[in-house]
Amino acid sequence: MFSLRIFKAQLPFRRFCSSKALMGKFHNSLSFDKRLWDVDIRGSEAFAKELHRSGLLSQREEGELLVGLNSVRKEWENDSFVMLDSDEDIHMANERRLIELIGDSGRKLHTGRSRNDQVATDLRLWCRQSSSEARSKLQILIRSIVNRANSHLSVLMPGYTHLQRAQPIRFSHWILSYAFALQRDCERLEQISERINVLPLGSGALAGNAFKIDRDAIAKDLGFSSVSSNSMDATSDRDFIAELLFFCTLTMTHLSRFAEDLIIYSTKEFGYVSIPEPFSTGSSLMPQKRNPDSLELIRGKSGRIFGNLSGFLMTMKGLPSCYNKDLQEDKEPLFDSMSSILTILEIFTLVIDSFEINEAQMRNALHEEMLATDVAFYLVRRNIPFRTAHGISRQCVDLAESKGCLLSELSLQQFQEIDKTFDADIFSVFDFENAVEQYDVVGGTAKKSVEHQIKSLQDWLDRE
Amino acid sequence: MFSLRIFKAQLPFRRFCSSKALMGKFHNSLSFDKRLWDVDIRGSEAFAKELHRSGLLSQREEGELLVGLNSVRKEWENDSFVMLDSDEDIHMANERRLIELIGDSGRKLHTGRSRNDQVATDLRLWCRQSSSEARSKLQILIRSIVNRANSHLSVLMPGYTHLQRAQPIRFSHWILSYAFALQRDCERLEQISERINVLPLGSGALAGNAFKIDRDAIAKDLGFSSVSSNSMDATSDRDFIAELLFFCTLTMTHLSRFAEDLIIYSTKEFGYVSIPEPFSTGSSLMPQKRNPDSLELIRGKSGRIFGNLSGFLMTMKGLPSCYNKDLQEDKEPLFDSMSSILTILEIFTLVIDSFEINEAQMRNALHEEMLATDVAFYLVRRNIPFRTAHGISRQCVDLAESKGCLLSELSLQQFQEIDKTFDADIFSVFDFENAVEQYDVVGGTAKKSVEHQIKSLQDWLDRE
Amino acid sequence: MFSLRIFKAQLPFRRFCSSKALMGKFHNSLSFDKRLWDVDIRGSEAFAKELHRSGLLSQREEGELLVGLNSVRKEWENDSFVMLDSDEDIHMANERRLIELIGDSGRKLHTGRSRNDQVATDLRLWCRQSSSEARSKLQILIRSIVNRANSHLSVLMPGYTHLQRAQPIRFSHWILSYAFALQRDCERLEQISERINVLPLGSGALAGNAFKIDRDAIAKDLGFSSVSSNSMDATSDRDFIAELLFFCTLTMTHLSRFAEDLIIYSTKEFGYVSIPEPFSTGSSLMPQKRNPDSLELIRGKSGRIFGNLSGFLMTMKGLPSCYNKDLQEDKEPLFDSMSSILTILEIFTLVIDSFEINEAQMRNALHEEMLATDVAFYLVRRNIPFRTAHGISRQCVDLAESKGCLLSELSLQQFQEIDKTFDADIFSVFDFENAVEQYDVVGGTAKKSVEHQIKSLQDWLDRE
Amino acid sequence: MFSLRIFKAQLPFRRFCSSKALMGKFHNSLSFDKRLWDVDIRGSEAFAKELHRSGLLSQREEGELLVGLNSVRKEWENDSFVMLDSDEDIHMANERRLIELIGDSGRKLHTGRSRNDQVATDLRLWCRQSSSEARSKLQILIRSIVNRANSHLSVLMPGYTHLQRAQPIRFSHWILSYAFALQRDCERLEQISERINVLPLGSGALAGNAFKIDRDAIAKDLGFSSVSSNSMDATSDRDFIAELLFFCTLTMTHLSRFAEDLIIYSTKEFGYVSIPEPFSTGSSLMPQKRNPDSLELIRGKSGRIFGNLSGFLMTMKGLPSCYNKDLQEDKEPLFDSMSSILTILEIFTLVIDSFEINEAQMRNALHEEMLATDVAFYLVRRNIPFRTAHGISRQCVDLAESKGCLLSELSLQQFQEIDKTFDADIFSVFDFENAVEQYDVVGGTAKKSVEHQIKSLQDWLDRE
Repeated sequence: MFSLRIFKAQLPFRRFCSSKALMGKFHNSLSFDKRLWDVDIRGSEAFAKELHRSGLLSQREEGELLVGLNSVRKEWENDSFVMLDSDEDIHMANERRLIELIGDSGRKLHTGRSRNDQVATDLRLWCRQSSSEARSKLQILIRSIVNRANSHLSVLMPGYTHLQRAQPIRFSHWILSYAFALQRDCERLEQISERINVLPLGSGALAGNAFKIDRDAIAKDLGFSSVSSNSMDATSDRDFIAELLFFCTLTMTHLSRFAEDLIIYSTKEFGYVSIPEPFSTGSSLMPQKRNPDSLELIRGKSGRIFGNLSGFLMTMKGLPSCYNKDLQEDKEPLFDSMSSILTILEIFTLVIDSFEINEAQMRNALHEEMLATDVAFYLVRRNIPFRTAHGISRQCVDLAESKGCLLSELSLQQFQEIDKTFDADIFSVFDFENAVEQYDVVGGTAKKSVEHQIKSLQDWLDRE
Repeated sequence: MFSLRIFKAQLPFRRFCSSKALMGKFHNSLSFDKRLWDVDIRGSEAFAKELHRSGLLSQREEGELLVGLNSVRKEWENDSFVMLDSDEDIHMANERRLIELIGDSGRKLHTGRSRNDQVATDLRLWCRQSSSEARSKLQILIRSIVNRANSHLSVLMPGYTHLQRAQPIRFSHWILSYAFALQRDCERLEQISERINVLPLGSGALAGNAFKIDRDAIAKDLGFSSVSSNSMDATSDRDFIAELLFFCTLTMTHLSRFAEDLIIYSTKEFGYVSIPEPFSTGSSLMPQKRNPDSLELIRGKSGRIFGNLSGFLMTMKGLPSCYNKDLQEDKEPLFDSMSSILTILEIFTLVIDSFEINEAQMRNALHEEMLATDVAFYLVRRNIPFRTAHGISRQCVDLAESKGCLLSELSLQQFQEIDKTFDADIFSVFDFENAVEQYDVVGGTAKKSVEHQIKSLQDWLDRE
Repeated sequence: MFSLRIFKAQLPFRRFCSSKALMGKFHNSLSFDKRLWDVDIRGSEAFAKELHRSGLLSQREEGELLVGLNSVRKEWENDSFVMLDSDEDIHMANERRLIELIGDSGRKLHTGRSRNDQVATDLRLWCRQSSSEARSKLQILIRSIVNRANSHLSVLMPGYTHLQRAQPIRFSHWILSYAFALQRDCERLEQISERINVLPLGSGALAGNAFKIDRDAIAKDLGFSSVSSNSMDATSDRDFIAELLFFCTLTMTHLSRFAEDLIIYSTKEFGYVSIPEPFSTGSSLMPQKRNPDSLELIRGKSGRIFGNLSGFLMTMKGLPSCYNKDLQEDKEPLFDSMSSILTILEIFTLVIDSFEINEAQMRNALHEEMLATDVAFYLVRRNIPFRTAHGISRQCVDLAESKGCLLSELSLQQFQEIDKTFDADIFSVFDFENAVEQYDVVGGTAKKSVEHQIKSLQDWLDRE
Repeated sequence: MFSLRIFKAQLPFRRFCSSKALMGKFHNSLSFDKRLWDVDIRGSEAFAKELHRSGLLSQREEGELLVGLNSVRKEWENDSFVMLDSDEDIHMANERRLIELIGDSGRKLHTGRSRNDQVATDLRLWCRQSSSEARSKLQILIRSIVNRANSHLSVLMPGYTHLQRAQPIRFSHWILSYAFALQRDCERLEQISERINVLPLGSGALAGNAFKIDRDAIAKDLGFSSVSSNSMDATSDRDFIAELLFFCTLTMTHLSRFAEDLIIYSTKEFGYVSIPEPFSTGSSLMPQKRNPDSLELIRGKSGRIFGNLSGFLMTMKGLPSCYNKDLQEDKEPLFDSMSSILTILEIFTLVIDSFEINEAQMRNALHEEMLATDVAFYLVRRNIPFRTAHGISRQCVDLAESKGCLLSELSLQQFQEIDKTFDADIFSVFDFENAVEQYDVVGGTAKKSVEHQIKSLQDWLDRE
């Protein structure tokens, strides 16, 4: 192309040699994309069958290809596949080995296929599989939460806002709040799965396929629900990866909050829960300590998983159309986030199944102050406007505090000096069980509302 | 509470005063959440009606409230609402004004409601409205793309991978590739909208509502499709905001890539497109220049919009259960991302409607080298295995390059010296129109495939 | 340029008009960059003086320019500057007004200057000023911490790792740990300030200045310590902004941790500190509550400030050489982060000055278990290898726990049954004051070590 | 601790077993922190020597420890170290092996040390070493850039802003612009290195060291320039990691821009440079293509490296005081970013050394339009105010464009009809060499200015 005077850098030969090796290593993705060996073979099998149906392979050639691909599969399964330095990725490695095994038929496999549509297909197969695993692990975790909620329906504890004791609630209500967040994650994942399940194969490098193959037939064979609509888009669309990384990140946000609650509730000062071994561990210096390592590590990993999302989004930003090598950076964050979340969901399930709760400690933490709202509600029910009632209730709290006594230890007269609406039945307000039972709307903390939550989650889990 | 010896910091009085003012300002969200004035009033109206239906307000009181709320609305509409320094947010401002206008009935509005469920309701109403706008603007942009694709069906241009000329494609195929990416964004937004449309009102501060209100009736009144399932979750669930911010980010990733293509195509060196005024602007120093400012700014804003997502995710990470003041940081990124994307979608539509294309320049950029794949395909159709054919084709390319001639200027004999499979019809390969028409699978760049893409997008747009 | 057949989009006239207005608004940065009015004028004054010295302006013209620029300054100061819709940024606004005021001399101001080197200069002047403010506010906060440390030297509290009680420490030791983190932030900021303080003016649009101006003279006039070395780099270098955004982010990471500690320590369950009004606020529903809003908001804003950094880094990623319009997105994150951190540093200082500590509650939280390490150290001092001693100490803890007694309530015989190295002086170990005083190395929690920390910070502050 | 009624989850035994294994794996960091084996041993050697000097180890014990530690080192060097499943990290693995080898003296090594101060020390040693490598590789890259600049001083090319041709510049000026950005990275790294080089050992778990060791002596032994000032801060301070990750990110931002330029300049359309094998590679489908894979991958990896920073910052956000297990997530991003950047710097150096430039293509791309500024400058030198001159110059450009001729092909009369200031010498303006030589200020693109840049970088490199 450059026919004019061109500067030739004086690159010494030795340096060139090592630069080839260095670049080979830099460029090589086999060390991490080998985990696609399985989906790569499955994709090739389906492609070979379609090449035959389209008349590009004879029946014999198709047979050789399928036998050959199966032999490659066996080698991976037996851990006997030998990777060469020259195999720059899993796709080249599998095809290279196939050609070694079966010769010329192997050289026909890539007919009309490009690495661009091949890798997109493999990635979607892999994502489909791992997101299905994630969904089932999420549901197992949700079931564990529901079981714990069901086992402790009668346990009351302080509910917190701003980490300050706010109102009495049921323990089950608290723990179920995370089940509903995770249920949303499940729903998101299901919708992403549908967007994953679109076949890019047949898009070639960018322009499509020139051999009149039937893309729908390949899709059917591989279980895809549709085929991609535009070959240029299909070869560089990585939305499904960004979406999975975001799913992982948002799920981890929920788990980081759940972990934070449990870490705080397992301090000596709160003392509501206790994380058993092996999910808490000892100290190298302080013999008496139990540290909730599992939960801290999960909280910490929410950063890493977010990092995978944000790094990948930056990689995608501003890329020109179609395939660019930058896209090779899609795999490591994907693999890391998905395998991290699978492990984390398992660990979290085990923590939920095994943590101990200290019902008495929770009950002791319920102070009458937390019923100040109920004093206001008492007045509201006697037609005092809420804003006014709120002010009166605060006066009662202040009086009790100044006298160093409980609200219920104020006399009726003292109540009435503050506001004459108070009557003898004010003292029935100071009962935590009654207080909780007031909140009997949908989503409330009353027993029947909580039971309704449990039922609805169980029904959903059973349907899935 | 602390009855024991407590250190009292010797804060000088003057400093305390200014600290109160400073903290008031720090804490105050009215400057940005005032844009919720409308949805806040709508939420209050629906709540007032339910308070009446549940017997907490008399008919007269309900009437006063609705009239009062409408007066507040009018003040906002007329720009006559007077905000006070003591109004710490839009919710307090509206209620304060209501009470000024109607007195005691106004003090009843907050009965059983908390700012926690109120703000969550307002935000969801706002998000519902602005995501509906975003969806319609997205569709307008997609329609503009489809129109351009339809107008230039016969224009051929080089398709690029790695920013290197790869294969000839139709201009319409290229531009449609972005329409399909944006269609996915639309689909995502629709699914998010469903998750937005869940009513949190009736969740109180965290425990639910104690006055037996009918949450479904409020939901129906406000057009929500369901009510939240757990009050603790409902008051601090901001998933819908994270999802909207992610939607904006991913959409911007697409637009940043689209902008990058157009910026490159509008260089003097490529010269495929020209961005007219006012979407390109002049230079303060160089009179001859036209800079594609609009597209650069859009590409640049993809960073800002990603920043809103990533900042918000960090804010959410590791927060304890239920409402924490940190959540006040949800509004500014939401408002900024949504209003940015609305403007950007409009600008991008105008750019698409108006940019000029230089068909001749595109055609001139098609070099025969880009048909090297077709030489290989020629051989494949004569039963040469693809990998072998690819090697032969490269030899032809190398030969032509060494001779400084075009591929089609090689003689038949020269072709046959490389491989005897070549026959006289090899020269029919060197036709860009024919080359493009080979790719006639679903999603390919052949005319009928592109027409099919246009049709499917038009049908979808018409259905929406 | 495009002389061949070019598609002209049929943009209706009406739409074009509105598109011009829309694009004008999109493109316009005056709404946020007007805060550069001051530094823009200062930069222009210095440039005008150098134009005169270089012979490009007569003395009269220079005089007119300086008078004119000062008039513009006065208009800003008096809030009488009238911004026009056609002023696309502060630089154009100031120059437009100048020309209105003084005519042709004003048209000479931009001689050899480009908006590219002008805006870079203005930004650096702004950053220099605001980073100097940030540094002094940081030091005020550190001084407040040091003062609190100094006031409570004798207060002991539990030190935590993994949020579990670990070993007794001095309260002052805990609070000083944040002072040292903030001191590092100060050091970073100082180094960044040096990199900010480099003059880009004289770089033109990209190629430099063609009028033999003396850049060093301008630098001297404006207080820059050096001039930029390469004009292409200088006009698009925004490292100093990225660095400032990172400084803000890392500082906020420290403050988010500090806030987290204080939020946890101010729970009813810990009860170590109490955040007074106005830094904690009440609840709209629960009269008894005090929420540490100021600290939560600071913790929440750590996300926003990180978002500014990450968004800006994405904006910069992959930009071509020299100025691109994307760079306009540098200002809003910069302004937001710097003004946020200035306010936050003030608020945090006021919180530190005013929070109350509950010494008795801290003391009560010291349990003998926390001296288990000291039991091991007792044995180490009697030549038992540490790993062995650690195991023995754990046995003592277990025995005490199984007997439901304190470690110090075990009998000497019981100790000796576990290990015969124990002697009667083991009981002297169970004294928290003694325990703390062991740690008398540099950086330890013994009184003299803490006093040494206080001294070193005070000396540093006095030197600054 | 919990003596009251506690719920015991009915965790089946089998599940418990597998949960222990799963948690062991989750928790284990040996797979990635084993790369600290070397610095861990070095830290232990220095600690052992100080234990002896402080009287906690006899001379014999010290000797045994040093011999034992050296044996462990040899095992790692010979690749014969056997890691056990029970070794949860490198620190436990090394100590476990040491005790196996030398018995009771080995059990004394951890006297007064905690994993918290040990791991902080190891990390700092590792960072010191790898940042020193990064610095030297950065300087090698800068030297390569300077060499290329020096070799092509006479080559002119278009300078771009907004990716539009702006003004003629020297190729050397363009390439040096990146050298100056990288020089700033070097400066930052040097400052970070100083903050890394602070010894945390002797901080224990959080409270300090109780055995009167001399921390300064250890620091001296290990080459640290100072000791940490507060033990609580020292054990959880990871600022130095955040800073290194930011250094990597900002450096990558520069390299991503440099790569973007080279990718664009190596398109067929620009054709300024050519990236030789092995830094560009072929296509699996298109025989004629050369893709600049190395540069695209570098641009792509700027995302990953930013992801490491942003993930880690999220991990740190809001953590309570002192060590939390979340901090284990510091190592993988650090190791990944540092080793990535070391490889990238090497690859980039090789690309710089070897890319070819096409001087004629660059020269051909210089159009007279790019001298429009010079027409304005011509007028400025004749005392026309710049803003006026800019307008006149635009009229000339417009006239030439309307006539389809070059600026220099306009007649003097035509020039004078636009403005009578034009004289016959206007035609001397249309010389690219002269145009470039005007910019002879510091940092300009004139030959002497570029030579000065080269000299200043060479001097700096020679000093380093």
